[in-house]
Amino acid sequence: MPASALDCAVTSALRSNRDGHERLFFTLKPHLKGITMRATVMYAAHDVRVQNVPDARILDPTDALVRVTRACICGSDLWPYNSMEPNTDGRRMGHEFVGRVEDVGSEVRTVKKGDLVMAPFAWSDGTCEFCQMGLQTSCIHGGFWGGTKLDGGQGEAVRVPLADGTLVALPVGEDHALMPSLLTLTDVMGTGHHAARAARVAPGKIAAVVGDGAVGLCGVIAARRLGAAQIIILGRHPDRIALAREFGATDVVSERGEAAVERVRELTGGLGAHSVLECVGHGASMLTAVGIARAGGAVGRVGVPQEETIPQSVPVFFRNVTIAGGPAPVRAYMSELLPDVLEGRIQPGRVFDRVTELDGVPGGYRAMNEREAIKVMIRF
Amino acid sequence: MPASALDCAVTSALRSNRDGHERLFFTLKPHLKGITMRATVMYAAHDVRVQNVPDARILDPTDALVRVTRACICGSDLWPYNSMEPNTDGRRMGHEFVGRVEDVGSEVRTVKKGDLVMAPFAWSDGTCEFCQMGLQTSCIHGGFWGGTKLDGGQGEAVRVPLADGTLVALPVGEDHALMPSLLTLTDVMGTGHHAARAARVAPGKIAAVVGDGAVGLCGVIAARRLGAAQIIILGRHPDRIALAREFGATDVVSERGEAAVERVRELTGGLGAHSVLECVGHGASMLTAVGIARAGGAVGRVGVPQEETIPQSVPVFFRNVTIAGGPAPVRAYMSELLPDVLEGRIQPGRVFDRVTELDGVPGGYRAMNEREAIKVMIRF
Repeated sequence: MPASALDCAVTSALRSNRDGHERLFFTLKPHLKGITMRATVMYAAHDVRVQNVPDARILDPTDALVRVTRACICGSDLWPYNSMEPNTDGRRMGHEFVGRVEDVGSEVRTVKKGDLVMAPFAWSDGTCEFCQMGLQTSCIHGGFWGGTKLDGGQGEAVRVPLADGTLVALPVGEDHALMPSLLTLTDVMGTGHHAARAARVAPGKIAAVVGDGAVGLCGVIAARRLGAAQIIILGRHPDRIALAREFGATDVVSERGEAAVERVRELTGGLGAHSVLECVGHGASMLTAVGIARAGGAVGRVGVPQEETIPQSVPVFFRNVTIAGGPAPVRAYMSELLPDVLEGRIQPGRVFDRVTELDGVPGGYRAMNEREAIKVMIRF
Repeated sequence: MPASALDCAVTSALRSNRDGHERLFFTLKPHLKGITMRATVMYAAHDVRVQNVPDARILDPTDALVRVTRACICGSDLWPYNSMEPNTDGRRMGHEFVGRVEDVGSEVRTVKKGDLVMAPFAWSDGTCEFCQMGLQTSCIHGGFWGGTKLDGGQGEAVRVPLADGTLVALPVGEDHALMPSLLTLTDVMGTGHHAARAARVAPGKIAAVVGDGAVGLCGVIAARRLGAAQIIILGRHPDRIALAREFGATDVVSERGEAAVERVRELTGGLGAHSVLECVGHGASMLTAVGIARAGGAVGRVGVPQEETIPQSVPVFFRNVTIAGGPAPVRAYMSELLPDVLEGRIQPGRVFDRVTELDGVPGGYRAMNEREAIKVMIRF
């Protein structure tokens, strides 16, 4: 990040007007060479562009500047990809990334220049009541990447607020063979794990995973890791199902709706699954999830809900089924899952079946949206 | 229960045709003296009658015949009291009772003639997978009292199916001073406890109880018993609120809707309650319950839901709020709560503020429905 008078002026302007950050992003001209970088911006459904934006830089003493080395496209990015109303300001995209610390603010203590770090999909202070209880996605001072005010992971660099609470240093180099699996700890693997925890997967129990996307596949890994004796995956894409089986799925249900509920009941002695991991978020998938949970069981939902209400309140009540879950506190899970990745016990990086450079991101969205790719990794 | 040729013939008919039990109940003429008893039957909204019905008797070798000594009217009885479609067959009422064992079937082992017993509001075999895990309300072979096929607790006697799994013998006499509190273990105290457990009340935490009916009041007792540091009751009936305070409520919120949510937030540092006990079942009360739960908190619902869906799916998700609860496995909780009642540490029997003979039951329904009584006890 070159220093110049203009650079300093911009930094100063940003410091004095944090709310103006976004406006500044998108009104700065690309010809201001040296203070722009490339990043992914969504303007409307199916309109994703990689373009010049103002270079990320330290604004607060608790910030770190991270030069992104790997990032990815998330299934949840497909929600706005299919529904975003046109917005001329655009929305910065990407919330899963690993990168090299290029600079830190004066108050940052836990990471330093040169560290390779991973960032959870939510940034957090690490000290508030919610962070202390391991629910960093509800951090009182935290937030989510991208949007209109912050950098996103699908760009060359990111200003990371509250770096001490947010970033975790990695003990390996940026081209380590485990990098794809490490990258999943920023979201999908931690999210699958959260679904399994919320669904109370336990040794010897029956788990069912609704959805065969990257999160569902990581849910299978998590269910197996937590000792489930039977793992039923509900999905219908042959490549994903094959991977689910390798990850530990014991049964496949390709039916949908009532037929899927019926099939799961057949596979579970008529009773349903103890633990259901809802990894989609559609109304239909939630209906299936609550339908296949046995009495006293739990649904752990991590798919961003697309409906205003949770269905089947009365049957859920009479069967004492618990509905839990939400945005995964992947920051809390990083320390739990990291050893398993580093020692090769789990290989969630296998969910990546396509790699692109930054300029290929729009094509990556298309490929994931058309189910040609399970999950796309971005190499910088 | 006098034996006679007719008696034997009736018993035989019942044995050979269990599905005809109900029909037989209501077609037998009252003039068949000696084989009838008095019991409460609901025919339509606001139409509750105490009338002659066939005497309860042993049908299966696992049955016990219990002569009821105390019973009560439940807040959940008010749902059909306000909404039941007219039905000429009628519906036997009552699911909370204590009584004396008058006879047992040949396979009953755990209770014997002469025992004073309490019956949970659901009968259960005590051996199936769900009973073994302490969820007797989902017993594979169990069910609920009353309706069209079984005796109800608001009558002189009850045939208790699966007596070994269902009944719990009491170590005191039928007129013991603790009898009102013991009677609450058949439903409301166990139900309030279930709400507290489902809402994960824990020492030092903030609990909020939505509803100041008998279950809500028992929820306050349960929250205090489990160590909650702050207990907020949401209700507006002065007599009930006064009792809630005696039971341990530290704060009272008499507002409703959004104003109630706002007030609870004020009382909880802006964050909401860790544990919310939903003890009503209305759509509005559930909306309040999810609104006042803090991020990472839980709503334990025990009010029978009157809506098809659970509201606020998206905010509930983003705050990682857990929704749990259902019909309380009070059979499982009897052993946990009984010592506290016997040793006077909790006094849930104080929720009874009216006592009636059996013939006064219709008036008891009216009084509870009009909020003139919190909970009515029936003495036989």
